[in-house]
Amino acid sequence: MNGAESLVHTLLASGIDTVFANPGTSEMHFVAALDRIPGMHCVLCLSEGVVTGAADAYWRASGRPAATLLHCGPGLANGLANLHNAMRANSGIVNIVGDQATHHRPLDAPLTADVEGWARPISAFVRRATMASRVGVDAAAAIEATRTYPGQISTLILPADTAWNDGGVASKATEPAKPAPCSSHVLDTAARILRSGDKTLLILGNTALGEAALLDAYRIARHCDAGIFAPRAPARLARGRGRPPILRIPYPIDTALEAFAGVKNLILVGSPEPVSFFAYPGKPGRLYPEDCNVHVLARTDEDGPASLAALATTLGAPKISAPDPGPRPLPATGATTPERFAQSLAALMPDNAIIIDEAISFGRGFFPETYAAPPHDWMQLTGGGIGDGIPMSVGAAIAAPDRRVITLQGDGSAMYTVAGLWTQARERLNITTIILSNRQYAILRGELAGVGANPGPTAFSMLDLSNPDLDWPKIANGMGVEAARAETLEELNALLASSVGKSGPFLIEMVL
Amino acid sequence: MNGAESLVHTLLASGIDTVFANPGTSEMHFVAALDRIPGMHCVLCLSEGVVTGAADAYWRASGRPAATLLHCGPGLANGLANLHNAMRANSGIVNIVGDQATHHRPLDAPLTADVEGWARPISAFVRRATMASRVGVDAAAAIEATRTYPGQISTLILPADTAWNDGGVASKATEPAKPAPCSSHVLDTAARILRSGDKTLLILGNTALGEAALLDAYRIARHCDAGIFAPRAPARLARGRGRPPILRIPYPIDTALEAFAGVKNLILVGSPEPVSFFAYPGKPGRLYPEDCNVHVLARTDEDGPASLAALATTLGAPKISAPDPGPRPLPATGATTPERFAQSLAALMPDNAIIIDEAISFGRGFFPETYAAPPHDWMQLTGGGIGDGIPMSVGAAIAAPDRRVITLQGDGSAMYTVAGLWTQARERLNITTIILSNRQYAILRGELAGVGANPGPTAFSMLDLSNPDLDWPKIANGMGVEAARAETLEELNALLASSVGKSGPFLIEMVL
Repeated sequence: MNGAESLVHTLLASGIDTVFANPGTSEMHFVAALDRIPGMHCVLCLSEGVVTGAADAYWRASGRPAATLLHCGPGLANGLANLHNAMRANSGIVNIVGDQATHHRPLDAPLTADVEGWARPISAFVRRATMASRVGVDAAAAIEATRTYPGQISTLILPADTAWNDGGVASKATEPAKPAPCSSHVLDTAARILRSGDKTLLILGNTALGEAALLDAYRIARHCDAGIFAPRAPARLARGRGRPPILRIPYPIDTALEAFAGVKNLILVGSPEPVSFFAYPGKPGRLYPEDCNVHVLARTDEDGPASLAALATTLGAPKISAPDPGPRPLPATGATTPERFAQSLAALMPDNAIIIDEAISFGRGFFPETYAAPPHDWMQLTGGGIGDGIPMSVGAAIAAPDRRVITLQGDGSAMYTVAGLWTQARERLNITTIILSNRQYAILRGELAGVGANPGPTAFSMLDLSNPDLDWPKIANGMGVEAARAETLEELNALLASSVGKSGPFLIEMVL
Repeated sequence: MNGAESLVHTLLASGIDTVFANPGTSEMHFVAALDRIPGMHCVLCLSEGVVTGAADAYWRASGRPAATLLHCGPGLANGLANLHNAMRANSGIVNIVGDQATHHRPLDAPLTADVEGWARPISAFVRRATMASRVGVDAAAAIEATRTYPGQISTLILPADTAWNDGGVASKATEPAKPAPCSSHVLDTAARILRSGDKTLLILGNTALGEAALLDAYRIARHCDAGIFAPRAPARLARGRGRPPILRIPYPIDTALEAFAGVKNLILVGSPEPVSFFAYPGKPGRLYPEDCNVHVLARTDEDGPASLAALATTLGAPKISAPDPGPRPLPATGATTPERFAQSLAALMPDNAIIIDEAISFGRGFFPETYAAPPHDWMQLTGGGIGDGIPMSVGAAIAAPDRRVITLQGDGSAMYTVAGLWTQARERLNITTIILSNRQYAILRGELAGVGANPGPTAFSMLDLSNPDLDWPKIANGMGVEAARAETLEELNALLASSVGKSGPFLIEMVL
């Protein structure tokens, strides 16, 4: 058994059976090992940002890590932005980077780069394999780190000779430790705060955004007259009928400051404290008032759902269901506003859909209109490194082949990782991609105004995506994905209804 | 004057008048400053790999640095692979990365990342601006480092508040120091080696690949019966009629070992020692024999052309012209081989073209057929981080608007940075892109065989780009670039001849 084979055996023995790959020369023995050993689903992606974004969503959709396969430092570099997003989502990924053979590295051949230096900022664990006989143990350690609650990125650097040399020994990762709920002291403090009558908000993150935890948070909030917020961009939020209606922390800073005005206590459950996405001249970075207490019920590495359940019990909050959101909306007609678009989405999404939302500015108004949609999960760009929508759709659809994935994708962001459409076609994935085509970096127009600058011709041209217009059906067809353009909500409704009813990918350019 | 304005003034005062940009929120004041201050050509690119690849080729084509504008850590990350290639090409780039405001950074908002950590491996200079009043000085220092011979990458991190605060002071970079030629001692040693009669090869790199230096190397080689090699992938090599015919170091390791067999001396002129691109089991990493001396005539930071001229004088080598390469080839017909393809290229390229060659495996046979082409410059992927062809074409065409750029582009590599086609269309650049469409990662098929592995179905599918086929004319049209498909050399000839005769971009999918 060579080192590469021991790696594949270790991955499989540890329950990892999917690898998103963009291999190069230094990974040829790993590719050959994948060939010889059955059981691994290898998904080829045509750029590394697709690989890493797909691995992120695979975790979010399944709670299980996938492996990546990247080629040397520059290959890793191309995948870093979506690894950054994955790190902000607390996603577990076994990030495998092939590299120069150990004895070749000192010769500084052209592709030699500082792989560790680039990997470290997004990795909880970085290890370079040094010999074939240790690759199995190294891989098991990487997998264990990946599964450390709530999920982490491990980067395993695999020099070519550690893959090709004989003497490999398969290993197996140990089961991860279960996270602990909060201490009784912390629990009592939270209960005291909630009983005080002072204005209090629960800020939920990470696993506290699942259905059971949301219902516990909701009964606490109703019992104690508190508020609840989800993050601005949740990694995965259970939504739709039967789930409590939760708002996100608003993106525009003034709206966010209003939402937090007068709040005396924040209770964080698996969430960082709420801060603005960017700084603006003369405005605060923390969104809550200066006299507001911040109480951490559960750190990110603690069991948020169990802590919420314990808190609900301590408070004696009665079990309740999510409120009836009223009748499911009908498909909307008329001018294309965010609200009407979301109404059509709520009307036409199938049961248990996964919504990937990289709609950026246009998407801020989608939540209220979709409470009465069927149950679904909502996943967003967690780290602000745009270009994760199309890749995420690939990973989610691979992880959950019996669920429809609907991607709400800004046109500007789509261009960063557009090659992901090809993998949608090759793997015949059940994905409807809706390109929200406003032909500009709309968010930046708002930001330019927000910092007090009025765009002149140079600035305007730097935020403008027309001249020439992108023709999305042509781009999608060119990569093997069926596509059509919708100029009206009526056309969108017809295309969306038809696409979710058949298998395979479809792209809709929604012209705004 | 705010900090952003002082930056623009400093760039302009220092002769930098082109910025390749993919801006975000934290760069809005810089964008506003570009608006208010005339004189900067702002080129919008739809992904950061296009930005950095364009800046690389701008330097290679003009010898002058451009600035980039990237957005926070993930934006930089997306541009790292082509910065790695630029570093290997010794290209000068003022790499500007906007970031969180200084006071916002400690709050760890979602886009906060280790910008310095990611920048360091590809930068000779990294500085984070700390206050508006120092931005001009910081920018001047960055520009000075960029221009340090032979050219370097400087990364200037610009927190949003250092851009928006008042108190900016424009500065100006000092003129760069001229590089020194080699010492007389080193020169005498080289002369002694060349007179010895032992088999000797000159390995030229960097500025020693310009026309005058090549002619000096050529007369030395003819006078002393030595050989000359260019790097495997030169940053910029003067070629065609009137320039000496120089071969590149072969990529396949066995061919390279044959080329260096029996060599007793290597003389390096602005080039690293020749090593194989990757290691292979049981084969050496250094390409030259164990008993071969390596003599450095000029380090990369020394004046290679002047050292070669001095060496020619010392040796008394008579001035000679490049040999007559014979008649210019006619366009080829028949089956599409690399040789016939190169013959058509030689027949149809206009005078003084810039050839961007990311043809990877198919391109290895292009050189002998193009010696009799009109004078042209040949630029290649220097760092092995694939996906620089389309971006490089953008930068070369912006730097040299009166020269035709012809990009020879493998289909696999093209997908990494395909968004660059849109900038070709928006800027109406004189670029003919030829996609060499073999619908596979052809180089990896060879590498898989090279490491002794025979592809089975899994490996085969990981190296295969068909299923579905990419439709390049549709992809190009979708981004605003006119395009057509050639199935035969006759069709290629017609499309190539027509495209180089008119202005603006055109894409040809050459089906192999």
